[in-house]
Amino acid sequence: MKIGIVGMGLIGGSLALEFGDRGHEIWGVSRKESTCEAAIAQNVVSHASTELSSLSEVELVVLCPPIPAVLPTLEKLVQVLAPEAIVTDVASVKAPIVAKATELWPNFVGGHPMAGTTESGLQAAHRGLFTGASYVLTPISSTSPRAIEGVRSLLATLDVDLLSATPEAHDIAVAAISHAPVFVSASAIAAASSISDEATLKLAQMLASSGFRDTSRIGGGNSELGTAMAKFNREEVLRSLQIYRDCLNDCIAWIDREDWDSLRDFLDDQKQSRSDFVV
Amino acid sequence: MKIGIVGMGLIGGSLALEFGDRGHEIWGVSRKESTCEAAIAQNVVSHASTELSSLSEVELVVLCPPIPAVLPTLEKLVQVLAPEAIVTDVASVKAPIVAKATELWPNFVGGHPMAGTTESGLQAAHRGLFTGASYVLTPISSTSPRAIEGVRSLLATLDVDLLSATPEAHDIAVAAISHAPVFVSASAIAAASSISDEATLKLAQMLASSGFRDTSRIGGGNSELGTAMAKFNREEVLRSLQIYRDCLNDCIAWIDREDWDSLRDFLDDQKQSRSDFVV
Repeated sequence: MKIGIVGMGLIGGSLALEFGDRGHEIWGVSRKESTCEAAIAQNVVSHASTELSSLSEVELVVLCPPIPAVLPTLEKLVQVLAPEAIVTDVASVKAPIVAKATELWPNFVGGHPMAGTTESGLQAAHRGLFTGASYVLTPISSTSPRAIEGVRSLLATLDVDLLSATPEAHDIAVAAISHAPVFVSASAIAAASSISDEATLKLAQMLASSGFRDTSRIGGGNSELGTAMAKFNREEVLRSLQIYRDCLNDCIAWIDREDWDSLRDFLDDQKQSRSDFVV
Repeated sequence: MKIGIVGMGLIGGSLALEFGDRGHEIWGVSRKESTCEAAIAQNVVSHASTELSSLSEVELVVLCPPIPAVLPTLEKLVQVLAPEAIVTDVASVKAPIVAKATELWPNFVGGHPMAGTTESGLQAAHRGLFTGASYVLTPISSTSPRAIEGVRSLLATLDVDLLSATPEAHDIAVAAISHAPVFVSASAIAAASSISDEATLKLAQMLASSGFRDTSRIGGGNSELGTAMAKFNREEVLRSLQIYRDCLNDCIAWIDREDWDSLRDFLDDQKQSRSDFVV
């Protein structure tokens, strides 16, 4: 199959490698000429161009640009695509994208692979990024069944857990487990950084070990991505952060009034709950 | 040297292994007979007993029981110790312990190795746990210089970064980078678990990946330890959580009024700040 990949960063590049390994012909598109050259030189794609018009003959396109660029890119892409072509995306926000994208192109199917690393860009792309990961598709009632089947059968060749959800359920779920935690985690860095005594701050920086490393990891990531998550999934991120603040306020109140039994019960509950999220 | 280890869990057991490797004779004490038997069977210690009186001839004791048991254990221990014996502890809270412990035993030096794993207990003890870790000593003006030198020269044989701080500065620093993050992290689990729609909650549980795993790790740990941190370092943990809540409220306000520039600047600042804490 001729597959177009628009945006050859971590996700786009890694998908290109996987699809290429399975015998597909990969047509990459990047805004940057240098990325096109690197993608060809590293055998990530067979063809690369800065022009969407290069995709006029592909059968399926995966849109992998930053979240804010998905719809603007699709608007241009539909002007050059073959009428039968199927389009999917990988954005971590679905409701605001899927409705408009399906209007623009009925053969659009929203998608979101739950994979990432701290690194980004083509140089971080690698085989195996998606191995064992969940990959959510978010078709809606107006999505073409042929498009769903086309995306599903392609992704079934990867070693992923293929799931289906409404765009709305997807956005609520990722607000809780991925988007809101960015701000939870970033605030932990901000709080630690606000130690006013210089020597004590230096001590804290020296003492920070694996616990702080893990808690602060996603808060110290790509600021454009974090901002886009909040902007495009604003309502659900806000709702999730407000619930989060209520939980935190409970902790603060228990500690303040020295209610150690309630605090211990809360921690016990979370230890138990976490095992439902994390194997 | 004859070294006593009271409490043969993760930290006590791992110290016993390291000190034993360096030719010291290790005398272990545990409340449980089964732990004593296991410690002997696994060659973690040379001698093991459930009685503190077994330590009457050791030259140095490391107290490694749960935080609430450090002072009660020391009160009993001082009744059997040789007058010259040096005592140190490994508790993650220092101010409330060091002052009283030094009154009980002037040869007491507070200590805190910044090492841990998700596992606990003797079966989790292993060589290398402290390799490259920071190890803080918190002497006060009434601490005997000979005791400081005794603990320091023993720990200098481990591959640790040996630091010195006041108990107060230590407690402020660990509140920010270790204790408060337990409740930050636990609240993230609680918020995610509170998704009211059952199917969406199940979806969130399936989609949770490395980001949620890391952010939630220390919140899903030992509830006794988390509660003891809050109880014994209450004032600093509260102060740290209140600062944390202010940072979180800023995030919520920026998202609420769609001030994406401020949100992005905040995330950029935290990315930068994190590099001062985590190499």
